[in-house]
Amino acid sequence: MTQKSIDEVAATAVRAARPFARTPLHQRGAALVAVAQALEAAGSELIDIARRETGLSEARLEGELRRTAWQLRLFAETVVDGGYLDVRIDAADPDYVIGPRPDVRRMLEPIGPVLNFAASNFPFAFSVAGGDSAAALAAGCPVVLKAHSGHPELSRRTAEIVAEALESAGMPEGVFQLIAGQENGVALLRDERIRAGAFTGSTHIGRMLADIAASRPVPIPFYGELGSVNPVYATYADSALLEAFVTSMSGSAGQLCTKPGFLFVPEGADLTAVADTAASVAEHRLLNPGIGRAFSQRRDAVLGATGVTVLSRGEAHSDDAGQVYATPTVVSVDVDTLTQNRDTLLEESFGPLSVIVRYPDRESLPALHAELFPGNLTSTVHARAEELVDGSLTPLVDALAETSGRVLFGGWPTGVSVTPAMQHGGPYPATTADATSVGTAAITRFLRGVSYQGAPQELLPPPLRDDNPWNVPQRRDEPGHSHEWGSFVG
Amino acid sequence: MTQKSIDEVAATAVRAARPFARTPLHQRGAALVAVAQALEAAGSELIDIARRETGLSEARLEGELRRTAWQLRLFAETVVDGGYLDVRIDAADPDYVIGPRPDVRRMLEPIGPVLNFAASNFPFAFSVAGGDSAAALAAGCPVVLKAHSGHPELSRRTAEIVAEALESAGMPEGVFQLIAGQENGVALLRDERIRAGAFTGSTHIGRMLADIAASRPVPIPFYGELGSVNPVYATYADSALLEAFVTSMSGSAGQLCTKPGFLFVPEGADLTAVADTAASVAEHRLLNPGIGRAFSQRRDAVLGATGVTVLSRGEAHSDDAGQVYATPTVVSVDVDTLTQNRDTLLEESFGPLSVIVRYPDRESLPALHAELFPGNLTSTVHARAEELVDGSLTPLVDALAETSGRVLFGGWPTGVSVTPAMQHGGPYPATTADATSVGTAAITRFLRGVSYQGAPQELLPPPLRDDNPWNVPQRRDEPGHSHEWGSFVG
Repeated sequence: MTQKSIDEVAATAVRAARPFARTPLHQRGAALVAVAQALEAAGSELIDIARRETGLSEARLEGELRRTAWQLRLFAETVVDGGYLDVRIDAADPDYVIGPRPDVRRMLEPIGPVLNFAASNFPFAFSVAGGDSAAALAAGCPVVLKAHSGHPELSRRTAEIVAEALESAGMPEGVFQLIAGQENGVALLRDERIRAGAFTGSTHIGRMLADIAASRPVPIPFYGELGSVNPVYATYADSALLEAFVTSMSGSAGQLCTKPGFLFVPEGADLTAVADTAASVAEHRLLNPGIGRAFSQRRDAVLGATGVTVLSRGEAHSDDAGQVYATPTVVSVDVDTLTQNRDTLLEESFGPLSVIVRYPDRESLPALHAELFPGNLTSTVHARAEELVDGSLTPLVDALAETSGRVLFGGWPTGVSVTPAMQHGGPYPATTADATSVGTAAITRFLRGVSYQGAPQELLPPPLRDDNPWNVPQRRDEPGHSHEWGSFVG
Repeated sequence: MTQKSIDEVAATAVRAARPFARTPLHQRGAALVAVAQALEAAGSELIDIARRETGLSEARLEGELRRTAWQLRLFAETVVDGGYLDVRIDAADPDYVIGPRPDVRRMLEPIGPVLNFAASNFPFAFSVAGGDSAAALAAGCPVVLKAHSGHPELSRRTAEIVAEALESAGMPEGVFQLIAGQENGVALLRDERIRAGAFTGSTHIGRMLADIAASRPVPIPFYGELGSVNPVYATYADSALLEAFVTSMSGSAGQLCTKPGFLFVPEGADLTAVADTAASVAEHRLLNPGIGRAFSQRRDAVLGATGVTVLSRGEAHSDDAGQVYATPTVVSVDVDTLTQNRDTLLEESFGPLSVIVRYPDRESLPALHAELFPGNLTSTVHARAEELVDGSLTPLVDALAETSGRVLFGGWPTGVSVTPAMQHGGPYPATTADATSVGTAAITRFLRGVSYQGAPQELLPPPLRDDNPWNVPQRRDEPGHSHEWGSFVG
């Protein structure tokens, strides 16, 4: 894939937009499955490149590729089902209560060419063929993918496979394109032909891009997934819980947006299991020298903060090529230390470092959470069986639901499943626009409503026709509606 | 209703947020119906104030109040139905293809306190108790309404009625509040406790507010409905069509966001019916002196543009109080004149002024439309019966659907019905975020997704519980899903 000019890329995406939008749903679904199959067929080649470029383990990358392929299949199913189109058909009604109403039919249509920025930490699942690409293609939008510099060869090879599979499946030429370089990404984000953007990465870069998207002459939606520290609130802390915590915070060297950055435990809990478990975790390379340097600095700052008790010092050392290798660092603080050093302690640490917070009483947690953690991808509660049913946790759960995209009971936030009900997104800074980037609801980010009034059947998109050739769910509002509203009130 | 400080207003809205969000759906629905009933009961009082403050006719205001009450009832029905919650329940599945999956349940929850800016031109339907308020309250969000200065007394009285009806129906205190003054509106929009904004008005003010919302430390969604010129493409122009056009563009003195600002007709069409119809339209007061002055200037600019043929000069004169009274102004131009004077001619004229464009050939219309009208609330096609079914209009309809929220076939864009399938919103500058502000889909603007993972039934919101106490639609994804995806591809 040779690098075209940004202008050519935008023009190509626009040319592909209308024919792609008009592709019958079952063909678009089949094309997504074809991409999944092509990725699986090239699995060992892709995983070899990914291992070299990212330092992630083979097992992790195999799982990630499986998840990436499944994601495409789940979206294929979503597309073919057609429920995501939210088809509404209002029959004409001369006696409608506010005056005669015409025949009005509404569905969600593709928003147009989408620019997605790949992440470094998931070279498959949040990169070239990842969730944002799958969701935008499923929606019927041409995709331009800005490659992450952390895995350039993998990006090129994956993009070739994706583009080829789509074209072989009969999708219009240019429906998937790859670009590289931050300058090119920014230039394209400013291009009026791009109609939406998506991003997973740092708060700093994500906010910069969101601001560009919002300040264009024609602003566009920008779905950035930025920072999250995923607090966990435990009413008890036994060694099993602490071991599981260290496993979750150190998996993939803690380079996950759902890493539990904070674990709240009752004051006086025995935390010795942390050091034992952390000592058993093998060192892991960080994704690239830049991330490694940032982690080392962040770790130094946390270890040097006043009032911090070190539970596991871990280490972070670099090789000749500047790659940083780390083992888990875990510290503990009391609540006052946390609130008095929030500038140092509250920031996300991208890497294997987490903070255990010792709290004096459970009643203070809801207000403390609301103050310290206004926007997160996840929040988690660990409580004993009886506490989960006695109502005492309701204020905490309310506070978590108001500030998080996903609230967990037991378990750990890492290892996000890809399912219809998944929410991966939350109040800012978790995401710039509070939408999900994982799960089938992610498709709604790339759709816009269009109504057709008084249209002849011949000029309606197939999902809105009475003969419903694609067999999608249609919600019909029949004449006489105006007289029914009173039935549910006393 | 006395003016509280902005800080108190925000604090009150936050206090109301959680109890309001937790109100059972049938109670929230009943409260919306109670507001509708209270407005109807006060109808003659409110209409008297509105006539005096806006200059709109009694018949128009009666219809608008009926529509406003209906809008609340339709949202009540939407709330009680519960389909808008998009409930998804994924059963736990130890054999899920990408690894064991937990029980995950997702629904849409209220986004939090919403700040709505009222419009001048619909003192009921897009003002205090209008569509944005109805949608946000239906979603379960406390509303702060920034009154429009064009109808202050009506705003105060309406707000009293709304707040009282909500409180009598058992909704939390402070769920609906009124503020006045642009400075207060801007200050509250900057307040971190406000979680979304909505607006109907000018492109200038709307964009300023959207930029404020986007540049906050914590950006929020801002749903502005700004400018739209609603082009109409006719393949013929007989006197019935021209009469209907003049009726539509001059209704409510052309002060409607769906006014057809441009009518494209074939070159050589006989346009004499325009002047005859326009002459029969009685003069109408514009909403306020500011709008009157702006209209007069705009009218002078269009009448003075090179290449413009005046079909109906109309007039615009002001009284001692500065109120402007106008009759319809209609001019015609050829396509070259329009494209060469786009700075003067393309801008929206808020008032009874429209432009008829004479086009040489129908084939040029799709490209011309895409170039001149990238974002509109509506676009309309008038064609003969045989043209609607022979496929020749498909390129034009594609271009209209890509640039408009609603595409009409026959009929006129004014007189927007309030129905489940209505779309009132389109690509920028029609709206700042491409969502609808009319119809039941407007509720989605004020919702955010939240997932609950592994939650005990006791801690789930009622719509996600297995016993489904509110009887809402639940989409369940059962174990074994992973083996079904292949069934639809060959």
